[in-house]
Amino acid sequence: MTVARAPRRITVAEAARHVGELVCIPGWLYNLRESGKILFPLLRDGTGILQCVASKAQLPESVFQAIKDLTQESSIVVTGTVRAEPRAPGGYELEVADLEVVQRVPESDPYPITPKEHGIEFLLDRRHLWIRSRRQNAILRIRHEVVKAIRDYFDSHGFTLCDTPIFTPAACEGTTTLFEVNYFDHDKVYLTQSGQLYNEATAMAFGKVYTFGPTFRAERSKTRRHLTEFWMVEPEMAYATLEDVKQVAEELIVFVVGRVLENRRAELAVLERDVSKLEAVQPPFPRISYDEAVRLLQSKGSPIQWGEDFGGDEETLLSEAFDRPVMIDRYPAAVKAFYMQPDPERPEVVLGVDVLAPEGYGEIVGGGQRIHDYELLVRRLEEHRLPRQAFEWYLDLRKYGTVPHAGFGMGVERCVAWICGLDHVRETIPFPRMLYRTRP
Amino acid sequence: MTVARAPRRITVAEAARHVGELVCIPGWLYNLRESGKILFPLLRDGTGILQCVASKAQLPESVFQAIKDLTQESSIVVTGTVRAEPRAPGGYELEVADLEVVQRVPESDPYPITPKEHGIEFLLDRRHLWIRSRRQNAILRIRHEVVKAIRDYFDSHGFTLCDTPIFTPAACEGTTTLFEVNYFDHDKVYLTQSGQLYNEATAMAFGKVYTFGPTFRAERSKTRRHLTEFWMVEPEMAYATLEDVKQVAEELIVFVVGRVLENRRAELAVLERDVSKLEAVQPPFPRISYDEAVRLLQSKGSPIQWGEDFGGDEETLLSEAFDRPVMIDRYPAAVKAFYMQPDPERPEVVLGVDVLAPEGYGEIVGGGQRIHDYELLVRRLEEHRLPRQAFEWYLDLRKYGTVPHAGFGMGVERCVAWICGLDHVRETIPFPRMLYRTRP
Repeated sequence: MTVARAPRRITVAEAARHVGELVCIPGWLYNLRESGKILFPLLRDGTGILQCVASKAQLPESVFQAIKDLTQESSIVVTGTVRAEPRAPGGYELEVADLEVVQRVPESDPYPITPKEHGIEFLLDRRHLWIRSRRQNAILRIRHEVVKAIRDYFDSHGFTLCDTPIFTPAACEGTTTLFEVNYFDHDKVYLTQSGQLYNEATAMAFGKVYTFGPTFRAERSKTRRHLTEFWMVEPEMAYATLEDVKQVAEELIVFVVGRVLENRRAELAVLERDVSKLEAVQPPFPRISYDEAVRLLQSKGSPIQWGEDFGGDEETLLSEAFDRPVMIDRYPAAVKAFYMQPDPERPEVVLGVDVLAPEGYGEIVGGGQRIHDYELLVRRLEEHRLPRQAFEWYLDLRKYGTVPHAGFGMGVERCVAWICGLDHVRETIPFPRMLYRTRP
Repeated sequence: MTVARAPRRITVAEAARHVGELVCIPGWLYNLRESGKILFPLLRDGTGILQCVASKAQLPESVFQAIKDLTQESSIVVTGTVRAEPRAPGGYELEVADLEVVQRVPESDPYPITPKEHGIEFLLDRRHLWIRSRRQNAILRIRHEVVKAIRDYFDSHGFTLCDTPIFTPAACEGTTTLFEVNYFDHDKVYLTQSGQLYNEATAMAFGKVYTFGPTFRAERSKTRRHLTEFWMVEPEMAYATLEDVKQVAEELIVFVVGRVLENRRAELAVLERDVSKLEAVQPPFPRISYDEAVRLLQSKGSPIQWGEDFGGDEETLLSEAFDRPVMIDRYPAAVKAFYMQPDPERPEVVLGVDVLAPEGYGEIVGGGQRIHDYELLVRRLEEHRLPRQAFEWYLDLRKYGTVPHAGFGMGVERCVAWICGLDHVRETIPFPRMLYRTRP
C-alpha cells in the first residue's frame, strides 16, 4: 500500500496525542488475537502496548497474511491511523494501513517465554528477555521513577551529589561481608558497602551531600530481601542531629511514594497494587524507641530480649503493626556500628534510627548521628579492634573543625519491592546478582 | 550578647535573600583578616564563602578575642545581620553579633592545607580535606551539575533508566583490562567496563534506555585522562542508527554545557575558565570521517597511517583543530569492538563514531550502531576468539525480534575536566582511584 507522505514516527505512549493521524510505530508483536476477518496484533514498543486492528477487507492479501503469520516478539513496524476506542485496552487503537516485518521469529526456535507459567529459575536465566514482559516492564519503570524522585528530592533541597568511591581500603561495618578485589597485584581493595565514611568528609566540605550508587555485600543469605549488588542513596548533613535524619527520611519517603502515585498509576495497576496502602504514606510517621519496639514484639509473642538486634522476623512483625513506615530509634550501642553517637542521657543506646516499611517489608532506611568527638571515636575503633591506620583520614574529620553530623542510607531495591508490592527484591533490578546468580 | 528571638538558620548561598535580617550560619573559618579594630573572618559553609565583619566596638571583649584567636577550619556558628556591601566578595557581608566556637583547631596540630602551594601527592593524600578548598569545591559542584544535566536530558527525552550490573561474567571489549572479583569461592566475576551489552537487552524491552554508573578499567596507564574507577552514561536506542547517535550525542553535549553556563557561572569564575570557549559549543558540530581525520593528522605532521587507531596524541591534535566537539565516524573495523555494525557500502569500516572535546581534551563519547544480524555476530565472536557460551544471551537478542539499534557512552570525568578546563581528570571526582592511588 502506498501512502501519500511518510508517516510520522511515534511511540505507543504518544498515541493519544495523534488521534486521527497516520503514524508509524516500530516495535514487537506482544500477542495476536484473531476474530474472523479481523486480526488484533498487540504492538509492544517499550513505552506501552497498543492494540492494532488489521482488517482483511482493507489490506492487501500479502500484508494481511504476513500479520496472520506473525510470531511472538517478531519485530515489526506498523503504519496506521490512531483511533480513540473506549473498548480497547488503554482507550486507543491503531487501524493498520501497512506492516513491515523486520524479523519474524521462526516457529522452529520460538520466543521462550510464553504466556504460560514458568519457574523462577527459568525466568531468571532469561532475564534479558523476561524484562520485556508487561509486569517486569512496569516494575522497572517504577524503579526509574523512584530513582528520579530520590535525586530530585536531594537536588532541590540543597544537597550536593558527591559520588563516593567503589574501591575502598577499609570496611565501614566489619570485613566479613566484603568482596575483595586484586588491585594490580600491588594492593588489595574492597568493594564499598556504604559511602558513609566518605560522605562524612564531603559533608564537611559541602554542608549537605548525598551519594547514590551501587553497593556490595558478600552475604551468604538467600532471603527475599538480599542482593549482593544493590543501589543505595546516602545523604549526610553537617551541623545535624538524629532529629534532622528523621525529618529528611520522612520527607523523602513521602515524596518518593507521592511521585510514583502521581506518575506511575498505570504501572501500579499492571501490578494490581493496592494503592490505598501507598496513599496512606503521609506524615507524621509513627516514632517509637527500641525499648518500645521490644515490648511490642514481646506482646506479639516474640522471644526477643532487650539488647538483641532485630532480624527479618522481628522487622516483619513490627512493620505489620503500622499502616505507614515506622521509625525506631535508640538501639543498643552494642548491636550498631562503631561510629554511632551515644545518647548523652543513656550512653548504652545510640542516636540511630531505622525506618521499617509497612506490610512486612522491613528496614528501608538506617542512619543517625555520628560520633564527632575525636577521643570517643578513637576509643570505639579500639573497642571494635579496627585498624587505626586505615581510619586516620576519618579521624582527621574530628580534628579539623568537627561538628555534629548525621545521615542515613536508603536501599532502592527494598523501596521498589515495597512500593510495587513484590515478594522478592530480585525483580526490582534489571539484572539481579545473588549468592548463586551472576548471569546473564 | 542577647538577641530578642532565635535567629533563623540559613546558608551562605541564601544570604542574599535575607538582607537586613539577623541570621545564624554554621560553618568553618576559611580565612581571617585583621584591619585595626575590625576583624574579617571568612565563613565557609559548603554552599559558599561569606565575609563577616567583627567590630571591637560592638562586640563583648570575649567574643572579639575568640574570633581573633580563630584558626583555619575551626568550626563556628556565626550570628549576625546580612548587609549588602558592594566591596565585599560576592556583594554581601555579615555583621557579627555573636560567634560560637564549636571546635577550635589547635596551633599544635593545625589544618594541614594552607594557602601556600602544596605538591599534588600531598594534596591527594589529604583529599578528604582538600575538597574543602574553594577550587575543588567549584569543580565538584560543576560535576554535580553535569550529572544532573545528563540525567535530566535522558529523563525528558523518553529514555528509561535501566541500571546495568557491575558484576559481569563476560568482558565487553576484551579481558586484559578487567578487575576480577572472587565471588564466594564458587564463581569468578569481573567489574563492568561498560553496560552496553546489557543496554542492548533493555533497549529491546524499553525502546530507549540509559545506564549511568561507575565503570572500571584495570589499565596500567598513568596519563592525565585515566582513572581505574570512573562514571559513564550510556544510552541505547532500538530502531536507531549511527545518525541517531550523532544527533543525541550532539544534543546532550550542548545541553550539558548550556546547563553549566546557566547555573555554575560563579564556579567557572573561581576556576578562571574562559567561558567563551564553552559558549562556542553550539550545533552543528563538525562531522568528519576517519579517512579525513587521518589526512588532517598527516597534514599536521603526524606519522599515522590509515588503519591505525588514534591514541592520546592524535586525539589532542585533532581536537585542537576545532572550536567545538568534532565527530569522527567510520573507523576501520579492525581497531573497533566486535559488535560494531559494518558500513554496508564499505565493510572494512564500521558505523561507529567518536566525539572529541575541543582544546585538546580528546575522546568524550564513543558509540555507534551494533550488529543486529545473528550470523554476522556469531562470525565476529569467532574472529575475536570470544567464548560463545558467555554470549548466548547476547545472541538471543538477535534471535527474538532483532532490530537495528545504536548507542554510545560518555565519560563523566573527561567531560568535567574539559568543561572546567583542568589538566588532569583526578580532580573531577571526590576520591580518585588510579594505578597507585586507592586512598583515602
